Amino acid sequence: MAKERSGEVADNALRHFATAPLRLFASSPLLNYQREDLPGDLLAGLIVAIMLVPQAMAYALLAGLPPQVGLYASIVPVALYGLLGSSRTLAVGPVAIVSLLVATALTPLAEPGSVDYVQLALVLALLSGIIQAVMGLARLGFLVNFLSHPVLSGFTNGVALVIGLSQVRHLLGVSLPASENFVGAAWYTAVAIPQSNLITLAIGLGSVALLLYFKYSFATQLAAWGVAEKWRVPLAKSAPLVVVLLGTLLVWLLGLHETAGVRIVGDVPAGLPPLTAPTFDLDLWQLLLPTALAISLVGYTESISVAKSLASKRRQKVSPNQELAALGLANLGASFTGGYPVTGGISRSVVNFAAGANTGLSSIITAVLVALTLIFLMPLFYFLPQAVLAAIILVAVMGLVDLSTLRQTWAYNKADAASWAVTFGAVLVISVEMGILIGVLASLGLYLWRTSRPHVAEVGRLDGETYRNVLRHPVQTYPGVAAIRIDESLYFANSRFLEDTILHLVSERPDIDHVVLIGSAINFIDASALETLEALVDRLRDAGVDFHLTDIKGPVMDRLERVGFIDHVGRDHIFLTTHEAMCALGCVMRTS
Amino acid sequence: MAKERSGEVADNALRHFATAPLRLFASSPLLNYQREDLPGDLLAGLIVAIMLVPQAMAYALLAGLPPQVGLYASIVPVALYGLLGSSRTLAVGPVAIVSLLVATALTPLAEPGSVDYVQLALVLALLSGIIQAVMGLARLGFLVNFLSHPVLSGFTNGVALVIGLSQVRHLLGVSLPASENFVGAAWYTAVAIPQSNLITLAIGLGSVALLLYFKYSFATQLAAWGVAEKWRVPLAKSAPLVVVLLGTLLVWLLGLHETAGVRIVGDVPAGLPPLTAPTFDLDLWQLLLPTALAISLVGYTESISVAKSLASKRRQKVSPNQELAALGLANLGASFTGGYPVTGGISRSVVNFAAGANTGLSSIITAVLVALTLIFLMPLFYFLPQAVLAAIILVAVMGLVDLSTLRQTWAYNKADAASWAVTFGAVLVISVEMGILIGVLASLGLYLWRTSRPHVAEVGRLDGETYRNVLRHPVQTYPGVAAIRIDESLYFANSRFLEDTILHLVSERPDIDHVVLIGSAINFIDASALETLEALVDRLRDAGVDFHLTDIKGPVMDRLERVGFIDHVGRDHIFLTTHEAMCALGCVMRTS
Repeated sequence: MAKERSGEVADNALRHFATAPLRLFASSPLLNYQREDLPGDLLAGLIVAIMLVPQAMAYALLAGLPPQVGLYASIVPVALYGLLGSSRTLAVGPVAIVSLLVATALTPLAEPGSVDYVQLALVLALLSGIIQAVMGLARLGFLVNFLSHPVLSGFTNGVALVIGLSQVRHLLGVSLPASENFVGAAWYTAVAIPQSNLITLAIGLGSVALLLYFKYSFATQLAAWGVAEKWRVPLAKSAPLVVVLLGTLLVWLLGLHETAGVRIVGDVPAGLPPLTAPTFDLDLWQLLLPTALAISLVGYTESISVAKSLASKRRQKVSPNQELAALGLANLGASFTGGYPVTGGISRSVVNFAAGANTGLSSIITAVLVALTLIFLMPLFYFLPQAVLAAIILVAVMGLVDLSTLRQTWAYNKADAASWAVTFGAVLVISVEMGILIGVLASLGLYLWRTSRPHVAEVGRLDGETYRNVLRHPVQTYPGVAAIRIDESLYFANSRFLEDTILHLVSERPDIDHVVLIGSAINFIDASALETLEALVDRLRDAGVDFHLTDIKGPVMDRLERVGFIDHVGRDHIFLTTHEAMCALGCVMRTS
Repeated sequence: MAKERSGEVADNALRHFATAPLRLFASSPLLNYQREDLPGDLLAGLIVAIMLVPQAMAYALLAGLPPQVGLYASIVPVALYGLLGSSRTLAVGPVAIVSLLVATALTPLAEPGSVDYVQLALVLALLSGIIQAVMGLARLGFLVNFLSHPVLSGFTNGVALVIGLSQVRHLLGVSLPASENFVGAAWYTAVAIPQSNLITLAIGLGSVALLLYFKYSFATQLAAWGVAEKWRVPLAKSAPLVVVLLGTLLVWLLGLHETAGVRIVGDVPAGLPPLTAPTFDLDLWQLLLPTALAISLVGYTESISVAKSLASKRRQKVSPNQELAALGLANLGASFTGGYPVTGGISRSVVNFAAGANTGLSSIITAVLVALTLIFLMPLFYFLPQAVLAAIILVAVMGLVDLSTLRQTWAYNKADAASWAVTFGAVLVISVEMGILIGVLASLGLYLWRTSRPHVAEVGRLDGETYRNVLRHPVQTYPGVAAIRIDESLYFANSRFLEDTILHLVSERPDIDHVVLIGSAINFIDASALETLEALVDRLRDAGVDFHLTDIKGPVMDRLERVGFIDHVGRDHIFLTTHEAMCALGCVMRTS
């Protein structure tokens, strides 16, 4: 009987696990598509496609891949996310940070742009996809919470500098040797400036200027021209397409690729993405695992934060674990259709939202348009100068630089600012991946350090039943009684600190006969802290000092009761409020 | 001027650092020795010496070292600690756990008992000494607080089993191949049982029986015989000496080492410890560093806990950082006088205390007596059977086995019990050193996991101004108002959890117009949590929900005020108490 039942449990568990992917996606809005959502989805899908085509090629080049790989990554993965994602407006595809992570990991292993290199990128997409899908199904999305904001901000700023610098060579039209970190790359770049191709530089800087104009002033200009408000954002966001067209025309008309040595994109194979199979090689997988992990977590973090921010504007919900699983399947899709790792991008998602996307259908429309571009329009990109793509990346990553976070953090809390600085410095001096690992460890270490030395105050009576820190307020204390408040839960790393503080106090002030521990800020007491408290009670007792407890929260009290600690302290030593305790002990004092 | 001043600061810092060791030891009780302390110190020093001589030889054998090394480690290090330690009763010397750590680290590097092996032990003592002395001077003693009680208990229990098993071969009189972990050693031991030397086994088991009798029944017997109480503990504690004498006599009289192949200690070189110089070899140092770190931390933790427990019984003080520095100097002393790493032992310290030690002079007396033993009595130990020493170790480590901690911890808190089990399992299955590392990481991980998913409750009015969890109490709530209490400080790992909880609530219950966050349990808000709260306020506002704060503690409020968060929320959205907030919003509700 018992065996049958356990078999049944196992069956249920199996069924539960087998149907988990289905349940995860049961909330897809496409299952009940409303016709009135269509116009918004169509327009948004079109505008995102216009932004995505040049960006996808640019980010592929940043990742060290041929431009078509960026486009391949913008079809099946984008459509899969549109079908399965819980966000209605997230625009998935190649993004800058993930592209840099790919380049950093693969450059030492194969020649950028080579067949081997492309194959390695497929493996990265596969591994990232597996990690994200498994994390989503196992509901491990909360793990990214251990990436603190200062660490992410320090990381993003460092990465923006690394990416920005990596594009300067394309603006200058020079080739540089590979370098281990930002410092080395900056040195090589500075040395190469005299060898610049001035025509290339002019095209690049012109593109940057045009993009910045579109970004900061064009919407105002459109308003002045009387363009209807709904068209202003879409028009301003078509900037990448405009510089691509202008740059291409310029090179084509003047033949600059031959007369002036301007590097162009050249032949991009037309046609739909190929079906590909990532290499199955456990040694290789192990080698790429740290990068895949970094891509999974960083990509998911970027994605979920923009998805949540957009969803809440319309009071919609995103499910973190479904997002993880959907991104994972998008990456798996990339690995089987010639792509490379993707995630939800900030700028395209904001445009998707602003242009009126209502459901994932807008992503599917984007994917179809990118596919049509690949089939029919590739010859048009032959003369596109690489410097234009570099300019698009450069302007995009400028938006990632944000020193205001550091300024605010510094004013608010020095430990957080230290996490920022450690991460930023490690990204620039060591490497992009080590940067985020070191940052996470530093932020966890600082958190543990802070909770291990909590604020402990002796309190006295201010007035009525209010008790405050004796060092900050003119309060009344009772002779022989020390009332101690600790502003933190008690756990192994701080309980001895409390014990030392109290024993020190007692040995310094031989007049103390009663110690009152005020537990109003104690949310939890772990087993180590409990043992330390028991020892403290005994040690105080050995020294002739009575120990009292007050303001203990209900759930904490329940646990203490269960293991007999309350009896150990003595029931007449437990009080509900500090005032009650002080009155009881104060009266004892007065009569003695 | 500014330069001069900074020079002065540097000078002062230098002077501060140079005199730190002096200041650290200024509190040594030996500086003002009181004549009335002498009788207690003399007696305690004698009794500890009687315990220490056989234990030191036994632990040296456990560490894979010749027996005299244990005695060398019981002279200069013990005297140095007596001079410099802040505890008046701690008895320093070779102990079981540290000896095992030495054996585990050195056995793969050299033949146990060989000259090379002894030399490596000197290096371990040197490194442990440097680490402890530097940590003491840099006031890093708090770092051991990150060893939680369950981890230490799991570690100690695992180590006790490993040590106990390692001695069984000596009781059986067999040799075993080296094994990587407890499981392997258990297998080899079981296989070797048929090859036992029965005479050796009889001597070993007889010694164990006698030691247990002394431990558990002899004091009662002495009481029945009418022996004065003050002599009972010293007599009972002389058990190791008694079994050593009996075992030696037996082998000598019957010639068992020749007729029955009983292994004896043999020639132990007589005379004072040699002056030695540990090898200076950076590669070797790097190799031994992890073990030295484990020895430093584990040794210090064992030492400080017994020192604190004994000191508080007499309302004395021990200074954690001075203890670290004194242990460090004791280990440095060991490394230059032919010893191996030492620390404060639990059983000998308790005896020292009980026998009336008043100051570190008792340790100096112990050291002198051990030195006299080395000079004059070594020939007496020639016939001592190794099985007797194994029996002494076996009975000593039995005292370390304590499953009651696990039972209590399991009842109190499952996460702590998990730390215990992970550490215990890792010690047995992987290795002693990895065990403690894995245990520390597991306990930190579990702590972070717990704080990352704090208890969040919606509260309602119970009566008067008391607000309680809606799920636990029959409370009154106001329509359109959700009052949320979080029972944890807000930091990066849990702020998104709070955000998700609140956004989920708001999207599930479209009637909610007001969210009130109750901060009575929030001791700290870090920069990530602040940013999340700002985003939460905006997202709720976008969704047409007002955000209110109440019961924010003074220091937390000060910081929020400084960075403008209070203005961001709106000053009319801040309340002092939950009741005040609910009244304000309740009234709004009623009139609308």
